[in-house]
Parts: sequence; C-alpha cells; structure tokens
Amino acid sequence: VSRETRAVRSEFNVWQSFTTRWADNDAYGHVNNTVFYQWADSAVNGWLVGQDLLDIESGDSIALVVETRCSYFAPLTFPEPIDIGLAVAHLGRSSVRYRIGVFVVGTEQAAAQGEFVHVLVDRTSRRPVEMPQSWRRALESIS
Amino acid sequence: VSRETRAVRSEFNVWQSFTTRWADNDAYGHVNNTVFYQWADSAVNGWLVGQDLLDIESGDSIALVVETRCSYFAPLTFPEPIDIGLAVAHLGRSSVRYRIGVFVVGTEQAAAQGEFVHVLVDRTSRRPVEMPQSWRRALESIS
Amino acid sequence: VSRETRAVRSEFNVWQSFTTRWADNDAYGHVNNTVFYQWADSAVNGWLVGQDLLDIESGDSIALVVETRCSYFAPLTFPEPIDIGLAVAHLGRSSVRYRIGVFVVGTEQAAAQGEFVHVLVDRTSRRPVEMPQSWRRALESIS
Amino acid sequence: VSRETRAVRSEFNVWQSFTTRWADNDAYGHVNNTVFYQWADSAVNGWLVGQDLLDIESGDSIALVVETRCSYFAPLTFPEPIDIGLAVAHLGRSSVRYRIGVFVVGTEQAAAQGEFVHVLVDRTSRRPVEMPQSWRRALESIS
Repeated sequence: VSRETRAVRSEFNVWQSFTTRWADNDAYGHVNNTVFYQWADSAVNGWLVGQDLLDIESGDSIALVVETRCSYFAPLTFPEPIDIGLAVAHLGRSSVRYRIGVFVVGTEQAAAQGEFVHVLVDRTSRRPVEMPQSWRRALESIS
Repeated sequence: VSRETRAVRSEFNVWQSFTTRWADNDAYGHVNNTVFYQWADSAVNGWLVGQDLLDIESGDSIALVVETRCSYFAPLTFPEPIDIGLAVAHLGRSSVRYRIGVFVVGTEQAAAQGEFVHVLVDRTSRRPVEMPQSWRRALESIS
Repeated sequence: VSRETRAVRSEFNVWQSFTTRWADNDAYGHVNNTVFYQWADSAVNGWLVGQDLLDIESGDSIALVVETRCSYFAPLTFPEPIDIGLAVAHLGRSSVRYRIGVFVVGTEQAAAQGEFVHVLVDRTSRRPVEMPQSWRRALESIS
Repeated sequence: VSRETRAVRSEFNVWQSFTTRWADNDAYGHVNNTVFYQWADSAVNGWLVGQDLLDIESGDSIALVVETRCSYFAPLTFPEPIDIGLAVAHLGRSSVRYRIGVFVVGTEQAAAQGEFVHVLVDRTSRRPVEMPQSWRRALESIS
C-alpha cells in the first residue's frame, strides 16, 4: 500500500480535545479504528453546534454524512486524551468536505487523518439545500 | 418504580471529565443509557492506571467486571462534557464495589448514578487473587 | 461479593439472536461489559417494535430507561453470536421491569443476566403516561 | 460531490448477516455512519477467523487496519438486520484491500460501500510480514 503524507498540526484550523474510553481499546490493546470516525463526527458537529449553525433537535436543515475516509499511522491507547484538528478542504453548493487530523497530545504528526463529507439537507424531505450565508462564512473562515 | 435518592457531588471523592460524542445521542436525541457504563468503566480503569495500580497490557493481575447497575434521573446531550465522580463503597478480599455519579458540569445533583464491581484476577488463570497492599491503600483513600 | 443464582433458559419467554462485532472485544479479549446493555436495549425495543407497540420515529409515547443492572458470569467473544432471553418481571402503571438473559448459543446457563426498567412517557412532555391496554396485554403475555 | 457508482450484490463473493442495535440509531433516527465501519471490521475479521487464518488471541501474526473509506447512499434503521458483502480488491505482499458492501435484506443496490485495508504484522514487533500461502490462497479465492 502506498501511503499519503502524514499531516502536521499546521494543516488544521480548529482544535478540540476528546477523551478516550476503556471500551475504545479493542482486542489488540489499542483504540479501535472505528472510534476515529466517532471523533471526526463529533468534531465536525460539535464545531457546527458551537458556531450556532446546527440545531440538532429542531433546525430546518441537518447535515448528513455521504462519504468518509481515514488513514491510520500510529496507535492510540486509552486512557490518553487526544486532539482533533479540523479544516475545510472544499466547499460546494450544498456540501462541504472537511479534513480531520487525530493527534496524540504534544505530538506534531497526525496519528490518523481523514476526510468527512457533509451534505446539508432539509430535515423533513432530506433533499439537499443550498448552504446559507451563515454556514458559508463560517466554513470559509476555517478553509 | 420507587427510586433511590439522587446523589450529590459531596458523596464522591475522585473527579474526572469526559467528552460526549455525536454517536452517543440515540434516536430520542439524548445520550444512550449504555454510554453511562462506558464512562463508569473508563473512570474506574483510568483512575487505576493513573495510580500505577493497573497495567492494562502486561500487569500480572487484571480487574474484571462482575456486576454493574445504573439509575437515570436526567438526560444528557452531545456536545456537553460531563463530570464523573468516583468513590469506593465496599472493599473486599479480592473485590471492590465503586459508586459512580454522572454530573452535568456546574450541577449539584447526579444525572445518573450507579455501582460497578471489580474482581481482581490473575491475568492468565482468571482466578481471583487477594488485593495487594498498594491497591488496598489507594482504594481506602477514596472510600 | 455474593452472587445471585445464574439464570437458565426456561426463565425467559421471548428469544432474539444478535451478532457480536469486532469492536465489542476489549483490551482483555472479551466482549466489553457495556455491550450487554446494548443487547438488552435492543432486545426490549426490538420486541416492542415487532409487536407494533413502539413507533420509534413518530409514536405519541416513547419508553425511557430509568434503571438497568447486569451480573456477569462468563465471558463472550467475537465472532460468536448470542441469544437474548426476555421476560417481564413486573408491570406497573406506567413502567415495566424486564428480565434479560444473555446466552452462548447451545448453553443452558446465562453468561450474564440483568434487569431493564422502562417508563412510558409522552414523546413531547416526557411525563409518564398510563400504559395502554395493547401494551399491557402484550407485556402480560411474556410475564 | 460527485459520487461513485452504487455497488450491486454480484460484486461481492462472501456474505455475512449482522444485527443492528438500538444504540446504532443516532439523533437523526438512522444508523450512525461509524457503525458501518464496525460491520466492515467484523465482516473481514469474522471471515478470517472462520477460515482458520486469524487467531485473535494467540496467532503469531495479526492484521492491522491502515486505511478505510465508506460512501453512504441510503439510510439504515434499527431493528432491521443487514447483509454485508465482502470481496478482495487487491492483494499485496503483506497487505490486502477488501471491498465491502452493506445491503438492506432483499435489496440489490448497496446502502453503503467502502474499502478496508489490512496489513499483516508480527504480533510482537508490529512490523509487516509476508502473507503466508494459506492467507494468499483464501484471499485469492474471494478476489
């Protein structure tokens, strides 16, 4: 397998910290590969909620995941906390592609990195809607 | 259902903070009941690791869960962080019963509370072993 | 720790099968204790949906978890499938206490057993409501 | 976002069924995107165990995940069971790239599809090892 270049902290614009859980460690003693996606999901949606863009319970629009990917470079282990870096890689009419980096605290190179694509849809019809100016401005600010 | 009395912060002796995750919210929009057990597990084992008592990967003894319970009083919601309080309720020859409280940040009454019973066993035979003095001393200090 | 008596299959009235997942195995190589609660939750709600009692997305009433407990007797390991036994232990005005047994396929004694208490509430106000006759009849049939 | 073509059942060579869990449904009422990776992980490792290739607890070699990706086309919802299709897309010296398809029972088009890359490593050193003939033969049989 040819591998992409390992990301460094300067490639990300927003930072959030997350805790690991005992159940995250799998039979090989390290955080299971699926947990990285739980963090990606949480970093993106947590940032959207913090920016008052996403109202999970009652907003007119919700953001659905249409594509994700992750490359793993170094193992993580409970109980160490981790840092998640976030940046916007591409902003479309109703979709946005985020870059995600997972870092051990105090390290420069990503333990894992990936992408996460959201499409903004109407909550009821689940059809794509054009991204509002408020979303566009906030997303451009972390591009 | 008759309910037990809701715990308050002063009933716990050790504190740890955990983050919620997007996937924790279930179809009713609140953190799923099973996640509280992930935090209990993490609070107990994280404290044991922090006290240099438990070596998850290579210690001679490991602590297995034999009984857990939880009462739920108030919903929690991603992305709010939570505080977990820990105390030892009973210390036996090879087992220990912990009390666990889950609190919204800044609140006095537990959102949920429960118990978590560990039995110390030999890693290979998985038979109970007598708790070493180092464990006993640390556990008594949070009783 | 004094332990309760291990349950046998004849103590349960409804059976459902579930699959284990790779991520269920934790650092000690067995299914993590919190996964048993995911199965309990799934067995109860899956049965309610199958009986046309619970409409997760749009029913007027939803069932909230107020108390759960579990005792663990024997380890389970991915990739083995498991059988979940269900029975009603107590039926109240707006609440129901279920007994849950987790069994390895082909074995008579429970690997784990516990209880799970649901309170039926109005979806919007989240206040308890009296259990409808349809619920009462179905729940009595598995008591 | 341009989307890849939706896979159909005939593109996969091995089939396994998995159950959904109540906790899989997230705040939008559908199975959370991270659960699809739990199934991929389980389908690949479950097949390896079933072929007597992988001994999770004590084999000399273990298979580590270095890259995964998934595209989502249609929502899934607890309590529906799902079918996972598996095929080998590329077989290298010490690595293998699997294709994964997630299907609603009775449907022809994938609800989601992705890839999952394993590298075979020595359990202790965690350095890549050449894939044994037994692995190669089995993997070629599902290419």
